[in-house]
Amino acid sequence: MTHSIRAKLATRAKLATRAKLAAEFIGTALLLAAVVGSGIMAEALAGGNTAIALLANTIATGAILFVLITVFGPVSGAHFNPAVTLAFLLRREITPSAATIYILIQIVGAIAGVLLANAMFDLDVIQTSQKIRSSGGQWLSEGVATFGLVLAILLSVRFRPDAVAAVVGLYITSAYWFTASTSFANPAVTVARQFSDTFAGIAPAGVTAFILAQLAGMAVAVAADRLFAGGQKDG
Amino acid sequence: MTHSIRAKLATRAKLATRAKLAAEFIGTALLLAAVVGSGIMAEALAGGNTAIALLANTIATGAILFVLITVFGPVSGAHFNPAVTLAFLLRREITPSAATIYILIQIVGAIAGVLLANAMFDLDVIQTSQKIRSSGGQWLSEGVATFGLVLAILLSVRFRPDAVAAVVGLYITSAYWFTASTSFANPAVTVARQFSDTFAGIAPAGVTAFILAQLAGMAVAVAADRLFAGGQKDG
Amino acid sequence: MTHSIRAKLATRAKLATRAKLAAEFIGTALLLAAVVGSGIMAEALAGGNTAIALLANTIATGAILFVLITVFGPVSGAHFNPAVTLAFLLRREITPSAATIYILIQIVGAIAGVLLANAMFDLDVIQTSQKIRSSGGQWLSEGVATFGLVLAILLSVRFRPDAVAAVVGLYITSAYWFTASTSFANPAVTVARQFSDTFAGIAPAGVTAFILAQLAGMAVAVAADRLFAGGQKDG
Amino acid sequence: MTHSIRAKLATRAKLATRAKLAAEFIGTALLLAAVVGSGIMAEALAGGNTAIALLANTIATGAILFVLITVFGPVSGAHFNPAVTLAFLLRREITPSAATIYILIQIVGAIAGVLLANAMFDLDVIQTSQKIRSSGGQWLSEGVATFGLVLAILLSVRFRPDAVAAVVGLYITSAYWFTASTSFANPAVTVARQFSDTFAGIAPAGVTAFILAQLAGMAVAVAADRLFAGGQKDG
Repeated sequence: MTHSIRAKLATRAKLATRAKLAAEFIGTALLLAAVVGSGIMAEALAGGNTAIALLANTIATGAILFVLITVFGPVSGAHFNPAVTLAFLLRREITPSAATIYILIQIVGAIAGVLLANAMFDLDVIQTSQKIRSSGGQWLSEGVATFGLVLAILLSVRFRPDAVAAVVGLYITSAYWFTASTSFANPAVTVARQFSDTFAGIAPAGVTAFILAQLAGMAVAVAADRLFAGGQKDG
Repeated sequence: MTHSIRAKLATRAKLATRAKLAAEFIGTALLLAAVVGSGIMAEALAGGNTAIALLANTIATGAILFVLITVFGPVSGAHFNPAVTLAFLLRREITPSAATIYILIQIVGAIAGVLLANAMFDLDVIQTSQKIRSSGGQWLSEGVATFGLVLAILLSVRFRPDAVAAVVGLYITSAYWFTASTSFANPAVTVARQFSDTFAGIAPAGVTAFILAQLAGMAVAVAADRLFAGGQKDG
Repeated sequence: MTHSIRAKLATRAKLATRAKLAAEFIGTALLLAAVVGSGIMAEALAGGNTAIALLANTIATGAILFVLITVFGPVSGAHFNPAVTLAFLLRREITPSAATIYILIQIVGAIAGVLLANAMFDLDVIQTSQKIRSSGGQWLSEGVATFGLVLAILLSVRFRPDAVAAVVGLYITSAYWFTASTSFANPAVTVARQFSDTFAGIAPAGVTAFILAQLAGMAVAVAADRLFAGGQKDG
Repeated sequence: MTHSIRAKLATRAKLATRAKLAAEFIGTALLLAAVVGSGIMAEALAGGNTAIALLANTIATGAILFVLITVFGPVSGAHFNPAVTLAFLLRREITPSAATIYILIQIVGAIAGVLLANAMFDLDVIQTSQKIRSSGGQWLSEGVATFGLVLAILLSVRFRPDAVAAVVGLYITSAYWFTASTSFANPAVTVARQFSDTFAGIAPAGVTAFILAQLAGMAVAVAADRLFAGGQKDG
């Protein structure tokens, strides 16, 4: 290989990496802006009816997930979620160093998105949530929610790659309601939601337990997924 | 065929069977966790407005059906419903022994999902519903609901296999509202919903009549479907 | 052609016709059962908040339209609507005699669906609506609603046949809200909704004007569509 | 080339242009009729609960966007939005003269749609909104909303052209809730919504700042998009 071809390939790889990181950053930021922003709007308008507020929050979140995964999936895989990145690491589909960078970018992007939501609603940009989220049921919920999310992603990536965006958007749409914790199911989301003292916030004291439950659910999903690797119908 | 090839094929078949049963178990469990869990959440938040509670319950159920059928369909066919399995048995597309195992697993999975929902919301894990569901209109509703569900499945499997997940999710979304019984349309779901004394529960006394109505609706659908077997446009 | 081949072809054609008529009958009946049934359920649960009732009615209607068009489209074209059948007649894509039979079956199916909804909710099976629907704005609305519906169908049949079910379901989802009449947009639906004195009913005095407005909107859509026949991008 | 072939080609080009302009006019008019009409209906029925009104407005808008982009996309590209047309102009995918005509038609169509909505609801056809929309947070919101919309369009046009209609419909569904301005994100929409003193209106004093914020967001999206031009996964 000549020097000039090698240089071109290196430039191209650098551009691809930059695109991936930009996709994870913008995607996770817009996801959190949607989660937190729609929570602020919904609570402001719902006149105290929390079911209506959560319904609006649900629809806004599910819809933006479909959009972000559809448009950034072809660039970075559209993880937006350290639990998803770690699942691919356990399956050796991403290198440890790439996974580390993905996760850092996701956390930074998530926090940026929360601050953006605060700013769009003319609130203090940096806040700390006072909303206590802590109970055995909520931890079980985070485990179940992340198990289902990661398993659904692994199966749809394998069997129906065109449906991943719809699967994730609709899974979260459902899980917001069927879990006691409203399904954070994402460590970057959990970290970032500390920074808004609004509808979607979580007090810092609850963050670690949520993340541990999420990682446990993810690990079970990766194990369960092995059952299905060779189990395709007629396969 | 040598002994070793025969052994390999046997192992492979065993793995495929295990995958199918795991898919029916996990799928039916998550379906019931979503139906019952979202009912608990919705009733808790809706401030007494049952329409809002049912709307949230509807959206959570329709969304998870799309997800579960999309990801488990390629593994087990994603029945999650003894009425569907029996329809395929009437059409000789599944053997009696396989159908029996499917139905047992669906019932066990459904009950597991209900107990999981109870646990996620920090309620007693085992409960008995007190909600009476019993009237001529409700039995007619279950018959109509299951007729429509099974016919929609048989037709979409034949004409638009890629749309089955959307068809089932949206059919149930609609049928929750247009039937007086909120469309259980599934014997395993009916059995399992006895075990949660919450929004989605059904008192044990009403279970048998619901299931009989569902099986009648299923049988009519299988008969009606024969009209369409040769009736494709331009066919 | 021998006698026996001719006989076989005749039998086959008869079966195809029977399937088409069954599809139009069952489809239109289930559509009306969904429209009227979900209206009854929604009004009963909504505690006087008509917006919530209409939202549930909207979602149930849009969802069942997607389902019915997806599963019956390959059989009969899934018209379920005399305005749609007449549009295809104006375009000479259906014969006058076939159109006549389609329209009769649609009306009978629609009425059957309304009576079924009444029965499922333990109401008197035959009723007459008292709900006055009559104003210049409502007639304009029916014209606009049917114009948009028929134009969307003609264009999606031409350019995106796979999307017809989603287009119609989502068009009606929107039009329920953006027209003053909640978009009947269908003469068979209009005739049938006289027979339920519930949320979705229409008093007999208003029926004729609604249908005339619908037919006017349909005719304008067929004319407008000609603009687009040769106007495909890059075409 | 003979004279007669040249004449035929000229006629064909004229027909294609007429179809494009008709698509932009009808599409933008129906979009605004849906935005404003559903706002009027929703506010009338919601009994003072603004969250329910916005939810109905959101669903009606997202649904009609899917429909209009699906059916008019193959004709005109389905811009319906000067910010989108200008983004394609910056990327030299449309000529300045074609862009100018598109934008004029979009504005005229948008105003026609608002007047139509007023008429359908038996209101004065021409009105001036009194609803003040003006704050730093709202301008930031319009910038963010339009950035996200244009970036999502550019990326989905490049990577997933079949998903553009779903991406835009669901993006706006989400952005209605996660931005403080309810995401006008469209200069033609902003101009036209002055002309209805109802739920979706905007007082004339706020129009210019909204449009400037939208154009800024669009420009940032076009710049950001360059990051992704060569960044396709495995590319």
